[in-house]
Amino acid sequence: MVSASLKDSSFDHRLIKGLRSQAAQLRMDSVHATSSAGSGHATSCCSAADIVATLFFGVMRFHPEIPRLTTNDRFILSKGHAAPLLYAAWAAVGLYPREELSTLRQIDSDLEGHPTPRLPFVHVPTGSLGQGLSAGVGMALNAKYLDQLDYRTYVLMGDGESVEGAVWEAAEIARYYDLDNLCAIIDVNRLGQSDPTIHQHRMERYVNRWSGFGWHTIVVDGHDPASLLQAFAEAEQTLAQPTVILAKTIKGKGISFLEDQGGRHGKALKGEELENAIQELSKQIEPEILPLTNRNIPLTGEVSNSLRNKTRRSLPAYKKGDQVATRQAFGEALLAVGKAHPHVVVLDGDVKNSTHVQQFADECPDQFFESFIAEQNMIGTAMGLASCGKIPFAATFAAFLTRAHDFIRMGAIGRANIKLMGSHAGVSTGEDGPSQMGLEDIAMMATQPDTVVLYPSDAVCTHWAVQEAVAHQGMVYIRTNRPETPILYDNDESFCLGGFKVVRHTPRDLLTVVTAGVTLFETLNAQEQLERQGISVRVIDLYCVKPIDAHGLYAHISETEGRVLIVEDHYEHGGFGDAVRRALGRKSIESDHLAVRNIPRSGKSQELLDRYTLSTSSIIKRIQAMIQ
Amino acid sequence: MVSASLKDSSFDHRLIKGLRSQAAQLRMDSVHATSSAGSGHATSCCSAADIVATLFFGVMRFHPEIPRLTTNDRFILSKGHAAPLLYAAWAAVGLYPREELSTLRQIDSDLEGHPTPRLPFVHVPTGSLGQGLSAGVGMALNAKYLDQLDYRTYVLMGDGESVEGAVWEAAEIARYYDLDNLCAIIDVNRLGQSDPTIHQHRMERYVNRWSGFGWHTIVVDGHDPASLLQAFAEAEQTLAQPTVILAKTIKGKGISFLEDQGGRHGKALKGEELENAIQELSKQIEPEILPLTNRNIPLTGEVSNSLRNKTRRSLPAYKKGDQVATRQAFGEALLAVGKAHPHVVVLDGDVKNSTHVQQFADECPDQFFESFIAEQNMIGTAMGLASCGKIPFAATFAAFLTRAHDFIRMGAIGRANIKLMGSHAGVSTGEDGPSQMGLEDIAMMATQPDTVVLYPSDAVCTHWAVQEAVAHQGMVYIRTNRPETPILYDNDESFCLGGFKVVRHTPRDLLTVVTAGVTLFETLNAQEQLERQGISVRVIDLYCVKPIDAHGLYAHISETEGRVLIVEDHYEHGGFGDAVRRALGRKSIESDHLAVRNIPRSGKSQELLDRYTLSTSSIIKRIQAMIQ
Repeated sequence: MVSASLKDSSFDHRLIKGLRSQAAQLRMDSVHATSSAGSGHATSCCSAADIVATLFFGVMRFHPEIPRLTTNDRFILSKGHAAPLLYAAWAAVGLYPREELSTLRQIDSDLEGHPTPRLPFVHVPTGSLGQGLSAGVGMALNAKYLDQLDYRTYVLMGDGESVEGAVWEAAEIARYYDLDNLCAIIDVNRLGQSDPTIHQHRMERYVNRWSGFGWHTIVVDGHDPASLLQAFAEAEQTLAQPTVILAKTIKGKGISFLEDQGGRHGKALKGEELENAIQELSKQIEPEILPLTNRNIPLTGEVSNSLRNKTRRSLPAYKKGDQVATRQAFGEALLAVGKAHPHVVVLDGDVKNSTHVQQFADECPDQFFESFIAEQNMIGTAMGLASCGKIPFAATFAAFLTRAHDFIRMGAIGRANIKLMGSHAGVSTGEDGPSQMGLEDIAMMATQPDTVVLYPSDAVCTHWAVQEAVAHQGMVYIRTNRPETPILYDNDESFCLGGFKVVRHTPRDLLTVVTAGVTLFETLNAQEQLERQGISVRVIDLYCVKPIDAHGLYAHISETEGRVLIVEDHYEHGGFGDAVRRALGRKSIESDHLAVRNIPRSGKSQELLDRYTLSTSSIIKRIQAMIQ
Repeated sequence: MVSASLKDSSFDHRLIKGLRSQAAQLRMDSVHATSSAGSGHATSCCSAADIVATLFFGVMRFHPEIPRLTTNDRFILSKGHAAPLLYAAWAAVGLYPREELSTLRQIDSDLEGHPTPRLPFVHVPTGSLGQGLSAGVGMALNAKYLDQLDYRTYVLMGDGESVEGAVWEAAEIARYYDLDNLCAIIDVNRLGQSDPTIHQHRMERYVNRWSGFGWHTIVVDGHDPASLLQAFAEAEQTLAQPTVILAKTIKGKGISFLEDQGGRHGKALKGEELENAIQELSKQIEPEILPLTNRNIPLTGEVSNSLRNKTRRSLPAYKKGDQVATRQAFGEALLAVGKAHPHVVVLDGDVKNSTHVQQFADECPDQFFESFIAEQNMIGTAMGLASCGKIPFAATFAAFLTRAHDFIRMGAIGRANIKLMGSHAGVSTGEDGPSQMGLEDIAMMATQPDTVVLYPSDAVCTHWAVQEAVAHQGMVYIRTNRPETPILYDNDESFCLGGFKVVRHTPRDLLTVVTAGVTLFETLNAQEQLERQGISVRVIDLYCVKPIDAHGLYAHISETEGRVLIVEDHYEHGGFGDAVRRALGRKSIESDHLAVRNIPRSGKSQELLDRYTLSTSSIIKRIQAMIQ
């Protein structure tokens, strides 16, 4: 299409003029909107306006009224601070009236300071730099390997964000999977927020880095629509490797007194400057050329994200008392849901033999992507896949999920339908030592609003957790341990979000212990020993850490003299102990907490549980102290 | 030296033979140690043994009995799972008897599964992959720009970890600062944990990537000491750019039945396999050649890390009632300590005009390093600088510190003496929207053991916080807000770690509000309005979130009918509300909590405080509900 139109020089001429004019209009709209808001990044919009105009009016195939059509080309604004430009583009194609742009950054407007999926054309939130390309990898993987659609994915990045390592993780994985349907564009406008960027306008440095990573590179004048059209056509014709268009641009382009000026990042214009800018931009708009219309509407497709997660439930087949690590049960359950649900996709960070994702990789290879040791990109890819209606599971050590914390944070902002599994939680991980132990994962995952945090103690509950993760729309975290633990529950035991299990209870209980995972079994030992001494305690398996059933917990605790002891293989702050206490906040209870309070060290699992006060003997001692 | 020795072919021959023999001994020790432990990464040690032998006995200048001598060459084992090899090398140079290696991974041994700075020769902990090069950047920056010493820094990385984005952040910054005193070595052994690595033995792909990033690259046979010596000499002679030695190796090298075999990662040998391995390795050791001695001992230097942080305290000069944002006060205080303390070094992620680090950059340029938008490397660099006795401050938006969570986690494991500042905390950040708001930073920072978390409400307290951060040995986090807040305290007010301030109190108080930062001022408004209605409440400024003064807080809360309301501009889970409740855990109190419970949106700061229940009116309502 584009290449065809280029051959027609009369159309070409009109198209180029139209794109220039449209770019000026987008600049004008961006300046107006940021000035109305009193804040925002006008100069960052101006540098990218020609690129966006060219993409929206000369390159991309999409339905301007159905932004979530599965067959649409995707556009990700990785440099999220140029949001006004994105909003202006969607107004220009007719999704909503241009007047709405004046609500930018207002509290009840969905035109937020940085794009979020409250807007139908925003597939993933951006605004933390260096994340867009990973989401683009997910979308391009989906097109090439899963849905086998011919949409293309365009990711517009800033030059400043090119230093973010996540960009290079995405670059590596995109090349590995030969994502020739992925096109990155870098708006090389030379100026960062506080200073010139690291490479300024040295375009050869960008070429060296990207071609070094195996990408096809094209350097263009980012303000020349004809060159941009040519570059996008070349990208489309480039096979078996992704393309990056390195667009040399000028920050503040189109407004002479702002062009290439430092100290102008993120500042809205006002007064005389605003008037001068508007006047100057007005002259660049040729109304008789506008509006261009996007004629490249895909003929078929459905609206994505309409999928509600459905799950065909199955029962596991474990034998009570058998020893099965929850990480192993995770792998087994994952295989089962993968076979039942083609939308389930799994990502691994080269630990699949530890997380037990190996069998899924072997038996469902078409639903599996190896993401290598690059956790940020793994989560970003999951977000991209989720935006295409997939149900991605990303699994690694709980400790290494911290690598992707910023992606998880953004995923929560975007209400991403992604599922994370963190294995090797806690000191029970053993000899590998503290660097391999997830001791802050509950803090990280539970702090984000609307996440679900599950911490199954046995294989049966893990089986449920995986099925629940598929069924639940939103971010779910499943925490597993390394050691084997006995099968505790019948295969047909029922669990629910916000639930817990009372594993031991008598009418005489003096105290409730709330725990989960490996420490549940230490607690059960303690309970048995105390029972022999005539001391009865109730034991609760808090397999669902979030949401938490405050009323239910309180009912049990109040039956046990208002005493609760929380035992968890997690650091003290931010674990489920805090969640339990908060849930009971307005009640008068006496609580105590066994958790990890020091940096642990290497040792045998049981030795470490003992040293960090999580073993049977510590639990007994603490219970005795509380009931005296 | 090395290049000189290479000219002497007779010495050369003996050296090469010795290095080969030494490498075999290191393999033998690694196999023995992991087999004694019953776990560990023997094959990952074997691939790197020739590299380590060559470095320790043929290249590095260091005092084998004083591992922390400031003039020593530095060695970082970024592929931390090869720890047994590192421990064997230090035994081989004589730091401790070889017999100690058999304590590997035992609970009371400092020879942990992955290296931690419990050991004097471990400068930064490793074991989360892809972090070592950033620490190396810090050490090399210190040598070249700060201490102006001629030590060299060697970072041994695995090939699997090369996909981690953090590596490329470090690569970019190392090149930017022309770190020709930094030498990375990649042990390209072709096999990851669960699969072959992304590039396997395609050495040209490594060359393309690293040379694309501006590094000098050398490809060598990683099992040939002569080639390795030559490569290290070439690296030392290469000026104005860092060098990476791409060493093609074989995983399991030296033990024929393990060589280049998949499925052997992280598995200790036993039984017959162990015997065969030992037998095979024995034949590769020539005792008459060993021991080599390291003759390259620096003649001068002092033991680093002996520095206790000292601070020359000064008073600020703010005027009560004036409006100053805490982020601005941070910048002002930082400038003051920077001028007083040459060891204070500041790192920025291209937001220095927002964090107010700009003035420090301008006035103390020799103590400032721009780290661009690459937060992982910024924190890793800080850890490297701290290991050289510097007191590094790394400052960015609180939200973007999540990018470096895994580095912060490892920093905590290493008890790194680094200081972090996160600005733009909370919904009060305003129009930029949720992606720019730090709402999980307290959860992230407080969960790590032994961290200090400060959240000053006014400029005077911020001034103290910065001075305290300098004085305190360990990781300190300072949280600041975007909006201006009034000066509340006298310039000579005293603050302390673990302290809080009672800002309003009467003997009639019915409830205590614990808060900090912007919400303190909302609370003070609420208190005034309630006082007019005859309702007295106590207001506590919890400027030190961690450590927390449980006894002191309880004393106040019990004086106010056992009621406490916590108000914080942070997500509900993992904020200081949880810390306060935990501190009071064994007491019977009634608590409630105003915090952010939903993903926020863009809007004016005050509108957002209102919408997310943190403003005066919400506080009044909640207090009224609690006291009825």
